Amino acid sequence: MNQVLISEVGPRDGLQSIQSIMPTADKCRWIDALYLAGLREIEVGSFVPPKLLPQMADTATVVKHALTLSGLTVMALAPNLKGAEAAILAGVHKVTIPVSASEAHSWANVRKTRAEMITEVARIVRYRNENAPQVKIEAGVATAFGCTIQGIVPEDEVIRLAVELINVGVDESGLSDTTGYANPAQVKRLFRRLHLEIGDKAGAAHLHNTRGLGLANCLAAYEEGVTSFDASMGGLGGCPFAPGASGNVVTEDLVFMFEAMGAVTGINLELLFAARKPLQLGLPVETIYGMVPEAGLPKGFQLTS
Amino acid sequence: MNQVLISEVGPRDGLQSIQSIMPTADKCRWIDALYLAGLREIEVGSFVPPKLLPQMADTATVVKHALTLSGLTVMALAPNLKGAEAAILAGVHKVTIPVSASEAHSWANVRKTRAEMITEVARIVRYRNENAPQVKIEAGVATAFGCTIQGIVPEDEVIRLAVELINVGVDESGLSDTTGYANPAQVKRLFRRLHLEIGDKAGAAHLHNTRGLGLANCLAAYEEGVTSFDASMGGLGGCPFAPGASGNVVTEDLVFMFEAMGAVTGINLELLFAARKPLQLGLPVETIYGMVPEAGLPKGFQLTS
Repeated sequence: MNQVLISEVGPRDGLQSIQSIMPTADKCRWIDALYLAGLREIEVGSFVPPKLLPQMADTATVVKHALTLSGLTVMALAPNLKGAEAAILAGVHKVTIPVSASEAHSWANVRKTRAEMITEVARIVRYRNENAPQVKIEAGVATAFGCTIQGIVPEDEVIRLAVELINVGVDESGLSDTTGYANPAQVKRLFRRLHLEIGDKAGAAHLHNTRGLGLANCLAAYEEGVTSFDASMGGLGGCPFAPGASGNVVTEDLVFMFEAMGAVTGINLELLFAARKPLQLGLPVETIYGMVPEAGLPKGFQLTS
Repeated sequence: MNQVLISEVGPRDGLQSIQSIMPTADKCRWIDALYLAGLREIEVGSFVPPKLLPQMADTATVVKHALTLSGLTVMALAPNLKGAEAAILAGVHKVTIPVSASEAHSWANVRKTRAEMITEVARIVRYRNENAPQVKIEAGVATAFGCTIQGIVPEDEVIRLAVELINVGVDESGLSDTTGYANPAQVKRLFRRLHLEIGDKAGAAHLHNTRGLGLANCLAAYEEGVTSFDASMGGLGGCPFAPGASGNVVTEDLVFMFEAMGAVTGINLELLFAARKPLQLGLPVETIYGMVPEAGLPKGFQLTS
């Protein structure tokens, strides 16, 4: 039996991508329900200027609540040193930092070149080392599979960036299909190279479903030895080009795929489906997706968790 | 470079599953557009009583038109000898016969036990041998991955049925996920066994997207050596539990996945997307799906066909 870790990014990646602002109490209720279903790693918010992302203004409060859930790894995103300081001050177990492999996307997203971002990450690592050495830092290589601005992102540049991030001291570096461009062959090639270059410091696969290939790409990553996957409940967030065409892979469908295959997620699917209710209550005007919750579990399906 | 054959089943599987009836001229225009895009195998209709499926009443006329397209393999479905006789009389190159691995589904679907269906298939083979030996017969094992009525379908029974179908003389036997229950591990197991048992007489993978795993399951089948895949343009037909949750795998998304991976389909994606127009014109009230047509091809994507 292979174990996989599903890392729920909905409270950050999902909630920051939509117009509605979920009230803090609703966020906490939703996170409680995710935890009850068996999720043990949740990205609960991001430390960014509230003027830019008012949806994330309460992240410190949400972190404080999430820290009461025993055994939960509480993560938050920080795009820079200031955000990372706030995240560490709030008490997160892990800070996630997106770093674009596409120079064009890096500039558009954070007004920094890749080289400047590496310098920023090095500053964050130094701050962490001096102030909170127990906190983990994961750098996610964004636009690792292609970029809507520059198009193709050379694979050598993706791998080189991941290696540089490890070299400046981050604990893990994963690969993100920010644009939904990835295909299974490319996913296998890049994760194979990542594993060869940085071994067990290779981080999560963060794969999108924009072109319907989300689960196929997750399968490809799994077959290449990846054991940690980002996903978002209800496919919340991302780039809604089409009904169901969310950015993020839908947590419910991903967990179903792995459980059906006999991989152990530790997540109870019925409790996971039940966690859609507090999400929907907190965001009454948003549509949430998920093929398995809507079609139902297959007749005779055995829950393992 | 691996070659894969995409077999378009929309004009049969899609059109027979919806309420609207597409006019014959529109069907022919749509099939022309599919052919122009590079599709070289199309299931154009089914030979069933018009009272049961009025959508398919013009199948003989559609077959006649499709036969004018040079190099196209023209297929039609027949559930019994009477239908197969009509298909052969109409001039099809290949007759497809669904045979349920689930006894419960077989009875519900065609009022025949599995044993009775095998007898019926044997009669069809005899008729073919005597009257049109050039016509191919493919039997698709339906409910091969599970059944909405009986639940689990034992894998031994699935494989035994495929072997029996080959033994009574069909040219190919494929596996169909009629209910959208399949997962990638199961797809690999069953196709591996199918290849071991019947070698190159193993037919197409007919996989559904009801639970979002359609492309992941196609990838699994491809990795197990399957080279022929059924799909339906716009995800037309099947069991619409949810937006986008069609029964059939979407042809456009499947072709994109294979082309992006470097597998050769012979299909031009832009012409394929253009073929959605005659489909939509012929079925103005139906919603058609497809993540890649809606999101667009990735920037810098190279068309190979």
